[in-house]
Amino acid sequence: MTPARSAAARRRAAKPAARPPARKGKERPPRLRLQIDERRAQLLELGIKLFSTRSYNDLSIDDVAAAAGISKGLLYHYFPGKQEFYVEVIREASLRLQQLTAPDPSLSPAARLRAAVDAHLNYVQEYGPVYAAIYTSGVAIAAEVSAILEEHRQVVLQYFLHDFKITRPRPVLRAALRAWIAMVEGASLDWITHPELDRAHLRDLLIAGYAALLGKAIELDPKLASSLEKILRSGS
Amino acid sequence: MTPARSAAARRRAAKPAARPPARKGKERPPRLRLQIDERRAQLLELGIKLFSTRSYNDLSIDDVAAAAGISKGLLYHYFPGKQEFYVEVIREASLRLQQLTAPDPSLSPAARLRAAVDAHLNYVQEYGPVYAAIYTSGVAIAAEVSAILEEHRQVVLQYFLHDFKITRPRPVLRAALRAWIAMVEGASLDWITHPELDRAHLRDLLIAGYAALLGKAIELDPKLASSLEKILRSGS
Repeated sequence: MTPARSAAARRRAAKPAARPPARKGKERPPRLRLQIDERRAQLLELGIKLFSTRSYNDLSIDDVAAAAGISKGLLYHYFPGKQEFYVEVIREASLRLQQLTAPDPSLSPAARLRAAVDAHLNYVQEYGPVYAAIYTSGVAIAAEVSAILEEHRQVVLQYFLHDFKITRPRPVLRAALRAWIAMVEGASLDWITHPELDRAHLRDLLIAGYAALLGKAIELDPKLASSLEKILRSGS
Repeated sequence: MTPARSAAARRRAAKPAARPPARKGKERPPRLRLQIDERRAQLLELGIKLFSTRSYNDLSIDDVAAAAGISKGLLYHYFPGKQEFYVEVIREASLRLQQLTAPDPSLSPAARLRAAVDAHLNYVQEYGPVYAAIYTSGVAIAAEVSAILEEHRQVVLQYFLHDFKITRPRPVLRAALRAWIAMVEGASLDWITHPELDRAHLRDLLIAGYAALLGKAIELDPKLASSLEKILRSGS
């Protein structure tokens, strides 16, 4: 597990971890808390599914409550309103994608990248409409979406830097990685509206783009070579 | 001048062209119309400058009128409100960037791409804050911004397709070009917040990404070779 992955895992686990340790004969509050956390997670899971098939404007808080089989009052107990629910659903979707695409250190660098890109494209294929909606109209629904997207990019950037054992990237490396992340987002969004493209072809395009950007970064800034060339060579 | 460029030029020129031809002894209405168009263009020019240094929320319609040296009432004559003014400023900025980056057919393909990327990066350097604001919060201010950005990407896509003499791109070519356009946007946005990167280095990264994406597209879909290889080879 990479530090980046465990950071995401830590964030996800933050609430349960903050619970006081269970005490004998007084188990109800922790169990209740667990139920609350589980119910909240179930609602977010449901939200990802609902927003995958219906737009924000088409989905009312009554619809969410009905789909969850709970009262609207109970739903408001978890989320103050539809906008807050939407923001938390997007945050949850971002965290899941972070987990799915976290680098697997048991793989070679090339296989690791390939697996991460495959996982990303699988996700986009499964949740296309919600992925597209987040990027195209999410910010218009709630300003927080911009920060969630930016944090997502930062986490992906850190995945790479951790692999390279670099804490502060030199400017050209940072630019190459951010350019690649943007390429993945843009190509994913276009693929949702033009799904006739073979998924393996899209993956190969993205990997070719990555190799070219990193290769050029090393050429432009030879000081990068020592950190990157070994990992890039060993993986190909 | 490419068809894409002339399409942009046509759109910009649409209003003056729609004027009836001047008639002897009755020149006032056309001249008045010209003054209106010119004044409107000046206001949009001013808007680009104002939004480059101040955010949407920080700039009032009074500020715009004061900076233009006109009354608020006259400003409302041109734009019904601040949001409409903002949308038109963004549309104007997009059209300018389209003109600045239109391919120059007098150059070789490689020099043409290099010139377009240089022009794009010059623009980003000059209008960084407004470029960043459009992409990060524009849609939150006015939903139309999303369509303006998408149309901009379509125009850039057409620049390339016209160069390749292709009207309907095969899926992998479309994906490669859209991926590259997204890469340019993302790298530009990151450069605005991290300007320590040398501009020539960023340009070289973007060109390397382009070559890799197009090269891989040809490899994945050999039918593309006949249209693309000649132009890509001739330019390098």
